[in-house]
Amino acid sequence: MGGFRLNARIQADSRLVSVLGLCQLRLMNDSRWPWFLLVPQRSDVEEIYHLTPLDQTLLTFETSETARALKRITACEKINIGTLGNRVRQLHIHVIARDPDDPAWPDPVWGVGNAEPYDSNSAARMIAAMNDAF
Amino acid sequence: MGGFRLNARIQADSRLVSVLGLCQLRLMNDSRWPWFLLVPQRSDVEEIYHLTPLDQTLLTFETSETARALKRITACEKINIGTLGNRVRQLHIHVIARDPDDPAWPDPVWGVGNAEPYDSNSAARMIAAMNDAF
Repeated sequence: MGGFRLNARIQADSRLVSVLGLCQLRLMNDSRWPWFLLVPQRSDVEEIYHLTPLDQTLLTFETSETARALKRITACEKINIGTLGNRVRQLHIHVIARDPDDPAWPDPVWGVGNAEPYDSNSAARMIAAMNDAF
Repeated sequence: MGGFRLNARIQADSRLVSVLGLCQLRLMNDSRWPWFLLVPQRSDVEEIYHLTPLDQTLLTFETSETARALKRITACEKINIGTLGNRVRQLHIHVIARDPDDPAWPDPVWGVGNAEPYDSNSAARMIAAMNDAF
């Protein structure tokens, strides 16, 4: 098993927020939704059950804390959490703030339309807000 | 906090497979995908961070074991796991077997078309296979 390398598509589509105990916390570059990714820094892991039990527990803790922080900074109606991996196999968990007036509600956001990139100030503000809330 | 009561829509759309330590494991009545639900038997819980840390750990364990069992019985390409709750707020986790020739690949299954109910023999076979694999 080699060292962890972030998938190139995840790297291109998101910005690093912080490095947690297990995961990189990243902001998806799509301003339509406050949308974060957790990427466990483990190589050759595509399904949650490929993680050790300890890593699974860490992932749950980091997912829950990300969801709680996202709720706090957005006051959104509902948090959506998902790990699909149909397009990108490296295990990654989406944590997304949803509201009834968002462009996909009540359907999922994945595969909907085209990303609307942040301007750099807005991305920096979202990253700072998330780091403050953690 | 009252006792746990299963949401009426979840009850109508799925069949009980087994009761685990925390969750009801249920089969969605949609034969287009092997699709299971985990419903923590806790009242007034809509987000993962509403669960106690111990319950979060149990949920992770049960999600992981469900995913592993589903992979074993279907030999699917990818497991999709998600908790959205945009339509039904009672916390529930979807665990779905996905394949490149399924009717939504590589997009998510939620909100796609109309459910195609199992005949009772097929549902019973799927439930038995899942219970055997656990």
